Amino acid sequence: MTDLLAERLGTVPTTTAKEALGNLGIRMVVLSGLNRLTGDAVPLVGRARTLRYLPFREDVEGPASGRLNRQFIETLQPGEVLVIDALGYPDAAVMGDMLSARAAYLGVKGAVVDGRIRDLAGFGPLGLTVYARGVHPDPSSRLLMPWQFDVPIQCGGALVQPGDWMLGDADAVMVVPGHLAGQVADRGEEAAVRDEFSQKLLHAGYALDRAFPIPEEMQEAFERYRATGHLPESLDG
Amino acid sequence: MTDLLAERLGTVPTTTAKEALGNLGIRMVVLSGLNRLTGDAVPLVGRARTLRYLPFREDVEGPASGRLNRQFIETLQPGEVLVIDALGYPDAAVMGDMLSARAAYLGVKGAVVDGRIRDLAGFGPLGLTVYARGVHPDPSSRLLMPWQFDVPIQCGGALVQPGDWMLGDADAVMVVPGHLAGQVADRGEEAAVRDEFSQKLLHAGYALDRAFPIPEEMQEAFERYRATGHLPESLDG
Amino acid sequence: MTDLLAERLGTVPTTTAKEALGNLGIRMVVLSGLNRLTGDAVPLVGRARTLRYLPFREDVEGPASGRLNRQFIETLQPGEVLVIDALGYPDAAVMGDMLSARAAYLGVKGAVVDGRIRDLAGFGPLGLTVYARGVHPDPSSRLLMPWQFDVPIQCGGALVQPGDWMLGDADAVMVVPGHLAGQVADRGEEAAVRDEFSQKLLHAGYALDRAFPIPEEMQEAFERYRATGHLPESLDG
Amino acid sequence: MTDLLAERLGTVPTTTAKEALGNLGIRMVVLSGLNRLTGDAVPLVGRARTLRYLPFREDVEGPASGRLNRQFIETLQPGEVLVIDALGYPDAAVMGDMLSARAAYLGVKGAVVDGRIRDLAGFGPLGLTVYARGVHPDPSSRLLMPWQFDVPIQCGGALVQPGDWMLGDADAVMVVPGHLAGQVADRGEEAAVRDEFSQKLLHAGYALDRAFPIPEEMQEAFERYRATGHLPESLDG
Amino acid sequence: MTDLLAERLGTVPTTTAKEALGNLGIRMVVLSGLNRLTGDAVPLVGRARTLRYLPFREDVEGPASGRLNRQFIETLQPGEVLVIDALGYPDAAVMGDMLSARAAYLGVKGAVVDGRIRDLAGFGPLGLTVYARGVHPDPSSRLLMPWQFDVPIQCGGALVQPGDWMLGDADAVMVVPGHLAGQVADRGEEAAVRDEFSQKLLHAGYALDRAFPIPEEMQEAFERYRATGHLPESLDG
Amino acid sequence: MTDLLAERLGTVPTTTAKEALGNLGIRMVVLSGLNRLTGDAVPLVGRARTLRYLPFREDVEGPASGRLNRQFIETLQPGEVLVIDALGYPDAAVMGDMLSARAAYLGVKGAVVDGRIRDLAGFGPLGLTVYARGVHPDPSSRLLMPWQFDVPIQCGGALVQPGDWMLGDADAVMVVPGHLAGQVADRGEEAAVRDEFSQKLLHAGYALDRAFPIPEEMQEAFERYRATGHLPESLDG
Repeated sequence: MTDLLAERLGTVPTTTAKEALGNLGIRMVVLSGLNRLTGDAVPLVGRARTLRYLPFREDVEGPASGRLNRQFIETLQPGEVLVIDALGYPDAAVMGDMLSARAAYLGVKGAVVDGRIRDLAGFGPLGLTVYARGVHPDPSSRLLMPWQFDVPIQCGGALVQPGDWMLGDADAVMVVPGHLAGQVADRGEEAAVRDEFSQKLLHAGYALDRAFPIPEEMQEAFERYRATGHLPESLDG
Repeated sequence: MTDLLAERLGTVPTTTAKEALGNLGIRMVVLSGLNRLTGDAVPLVGRARTLRYLPFREDVEGPASGRLNRQFIETLQPGEVLVIDALGYPDAAVMGDMLSARAAYLGVKGAVVDGRIRDLAGFGPLGLTVYARGVHPDPSSRLLMPWQFDVPIQCGGALVQPGDWMLGDADAVMVVPGHLAGQVADRGEEAAVRDEFSQKLLHAGYALDRAFPIPEEMQEAFERYRATGHLPESLDG
Repeated sequence: MTDLLAERLGTVPTTTAKEALGNLGIRMVVLSGLNRLTGDAVPLVGRARTLRYLPFREDVEGPASGRLNRQFIETLQPGEVLVIDALGYPDAAVMGDMLSARAAYLGVKGAVVDGRIRDLAGFGPLGLTVYARGVHPDPSSRLLMPWQFDVPIQCGGALVQPGDWMLGDADAVMVVPGHLAGQVADRGEEAAVRDEFSQKLLHAGYALDRAFPIPEEMQEAFERYRATGHLPESLDG
Repeated sequence: MTDLLAERLGTVPTTTAKEALGNLGIRMVVLSGLNRLTGDAVPLVGRARTLRYLPFREDVEGPASGRLNRQFIETLQPGEVLVIDALGYPDAAVMGDMLSARAAYLGVKGAVVDGRIRDLAGFGPLGLTVYARGVHPDPSSRLLMPWQFDVPIQCGGALVQPGDWMLGDADAVMVVPGHLAGQVADRGEEAAVRDEFSQKLLHAGYALDRAFPIPEEMQEAFERYRATGHLPESLDG
Repeated sequence: MTDLLAERLGTVPTTTAKEALGNLGIRMVVLSGLNRLTGDAVPLVGRARTLRYLPFREDVEGPASGRLNRQFIETLQPGEVLVIDALGYPDAAVMGDMLSARAAYLGVKGAVVDGRIRDLAGFGPLGLTVYARGVHPDPSSRLLMPWQFDVPIQCGGALVQPGDWMLGDADAVMVVPGHLAGQVADRGEEAAVRDEFSQKLLHAGYALDRAFPIPEEMQEAFERYRATGHLPESLDG
Repeated sequence: MTDLLAERLGTVPTTTAKEALGNLGIRMVVLSGLNRLTGDAVPLVGRARTLRYLPFREDVEGPASGRLNRQFIETLQPGEVLVIDALGYPDAAVMGDMLSARAAYLGVKGAVVDGRIRDLAGFGPLGLTVYARGVHPDPSSRLLMPWQFDVPIQCGGALVQPGDWMLGDADAVMVVPGHLAGQVADRGEEAAVRDEFSQKLLHAGYALDRAFPIPEEMQEAFERYRATGHLPESLDG
């Protein structure tokens, strides 16, 4: 069922998902400052698995002696997305080609990193879609400590909780609260057919106000299009 | 005639146009901080049609109840370029796939946006060349108000007036004052043949000072090249 | 009457004014990125007089041959505040000691500049309160053109209209829409006595939840305080 | 004993404390990006009490219905310093004059806020020393949620744990790991007398290499100075 | 003679010096990004003594084993100003209270540092005026190497050569080419009396255009003022 | 021999080179803030040839009347990499299609520019790999002066000396000290086979801790793999 939901969500543009959530009163869901570094071909969609870093300090031995990120990676399940709060740290990477190879083997869809990654060239063949602040060749083990996983975190300025969905495309990467994902998928399907209809009208030369959003006067034509796939005769004929 | 001028200007690199204007005493014409987000294949060239936004405020109903941008779009003509001062606003987009589809239908060449756009994936098929500060999935209707169009505006820190030409390539996007466009095109043609000659010399192993700018000693060879397309024998032979 | 309103508004902290406007549904009123450069002693309060700059371009002669700012200064009235959109320009100043001396002579209270000023040392004796992005020793006449005055502008990312009130203190500088200034002043007076009461309770050792916001259980004591100036006996005695 | 340690630490400049910790192998202790906004007169010194915020999201009700910060404030003890990770959030404040009045009543020394504060004018009379990113007139209740207290947090890019000491002066605000505070105080006293001796030599005209760090040749004179307070005769006489 | 020139230059505001140099065709003389951190009371004026840093690298032993800055300090002469290119480095300081105490003893007027300083509190009593990017508690010995002194350097984006004059006030810190300092001082004296006259007119209620710049019609009155110190009777009487 | 070393270094990822140098105690070797603008297909590797710019000032005639960069270009040798300190200057380019065409003719591999380039479209056919801060259509001749070449410089915040190797890929561009290049190449070959083995294990489903870094228990299998190219039977069979 999660697979089906993933598939449905994966067809929803972030613009539509954002609007759908806005209609439900949920607005603070866009992650800022992250770029899609690899995996342009497909939208990112999957359940969030969260990992939180804290700054390293020489007198503090972190959980699992600084290897908590490895323990975390081993728990990943197919279809999940890593979401990492690395504090936006600019001078080191928290994910490279070994962790990503293991994650990919386990069926992970991608990663959203408020920080940097490395071995970028090695990500391509893995099929992962990765959003991050950038790249850096250094590991982070003496600069950041993996501190907790499967807890609520900030990422790109938004709250991400375990169980939320992550959604990413060319416009943005965002979080879809777990319990609202179904509604967003529904809304996405509705919006998709509406947008498709509007686009067809525009390509046929309709003015904006007659095409988008679908005005009262075009409502009947739209219902017919939805039912039959046929455009108004004047366009089709 | 505008079409011919567009065609001629479209062959002029921004570096050359900038230099040509500099020789005419005009220097403040480069737009800063904008990136080419779509339409890499072709240079952007066209007449500027300007749109100015102001910050939204809840107690102020903007012109046309906030729909002035739609009225503006409907007035666009083939070969024009939208130039939008959206105040560099980072957290919302002023142009998406519906407005851009309509603009493309009307024959617009592209857009230069001091702000953000959305539905980036939808721009590709439209054939528009778009420069902007970036992408954001949100619309801007509660953050920015379309205020005026066809007035002088700032865009990327430069003044753009209706009737100016916009010119964009991989190096920059810039404004060419309307009354100087012809001179810039002339200069571009002159520079193109000079640069071509210099490049041929460089590829043939000439030192910089013997190849660019064309020194006195090569002037005769250059004139012959311009007239006949033949390089000096020593290169050609 | 404006003088009385100015006096009343001048006692309202920006935090309170912001909250009062928020209660009226108006939120986009804080100017960002500006610092108080001179005039720390008194809050800034006065009617906005707006001036808009555009980027200079060598082939464009601006209104009044680039001296529109001088024409504007001469129209200023006592109690007003200059609000200038200088596009946040970093490399030149739009206001120095001559313009500010004239403005001060005309009774202006201060200036809010989305850009830079110069002759900072000369501002002190004039008694003006000035918010700006910083200082720069250069004039802006070959970089920016004064374009219009007494029109709606952006300043610090907020919309300012002629007739709005400007309000500034150590926390912020903000706009108070003209028609709401009376309500903000009313709310300020109400909030002032409430905050004063809460502060007295806190200084007497009340826990936060018993002091601010004034809880149900303290409502009667507050009403007595408002009427008589006396605190609850347990505090006063 | 904590009071005595506080008093001793309070005489140690951050430069000296940083060097002392560096000698112990601890380097990642300086908080970056924070400014001293109030309380210039005295150094900040006290035990860290930590509070962590996460981004607000409309579908998530935070701990204590978003009032965890108030519960936290009520637990503060004399001599402590609030250390708040507000994610560096630029557009709202997490601490104003009510919370700070309560904190001051409870004997708190100051606050270190990776975020913004408001009601700045109200902080002065409270005697608190506050480091933060800046001011903003808005509260943060719809933008940030207080999430946890008395847990390890990041602040200004450094790790702060409950029980650590905070130390702040004109150069920096930093963390001193709790178990090393005594050694830092010891080193501070040693360094203070050394630096005082070096400064006296410099003011008497000694060259840098003869004054700081104290060279072999001046070691005996320094020991005498430490024991007796007398400088070498050549300086004193 | 240098002393006299220093005294004369010290009365010239940077705005005037900048304009005077501009009239001589010299424009790239303002240092950007530096703040006056100490010594607000007096303008900075003195001959530039330059020091250049390069990034530290563990396999490179810099000149004088990394102590070239100390050798440099010992060569300073009364009335000079240290000008340091520390590459704008944000995470360490290149000047603290020991070097500054020695520099002050040697009669130096101040420092202009494209980088950071430390021990800020210790600078005050020394009477130095210091411009820098900010403060940091760490020394820079493992991050930057003093590389050369008394060579042309960049500082704040401007070229500074040994022998140039440095001039700083509340508006800016700038370089005055050595051979032009006399002309700048001359122009400063001329401008001072003109500006004083304009200010007196403005304070007497003259409109901007009648007061600044001094218009044709006021030229005679100005000449009288310059000769006698008397304002026009209409103002004076 | 340099050619062989170049070939060997060219197979080493920057992550590996960085780690290898770190093991030798050399850490400050990554250049920050530069992007690969052209030449994605191949790693950059070659000997550094350095060029240093200083800010232009109208009264200073630079070396070779501002044409030192051209003299420098003419000295380039096959296999070298230009490394230019253009002070990160944002508003002009220090390298265009003429200089790059000459450099390419002379056999240069690429360029690393702490500044901007222009004529980006012209770089593609030349086969150069170029890292820079960005593009700008203007030349820099009135903003920056070529000052020295073949001297130690800063570039991207790191020290680069003539004779050092430059190494660039998708993760970073970095400097490899000349005398350590052989060791880095050795280490790269060792790391390559180790990483290859680890990747094969990961792709075969080994957990991270059993695959990378190669644990004790896999050491024998690794040695066999290195000798024979065969994986453990359990994987291979």
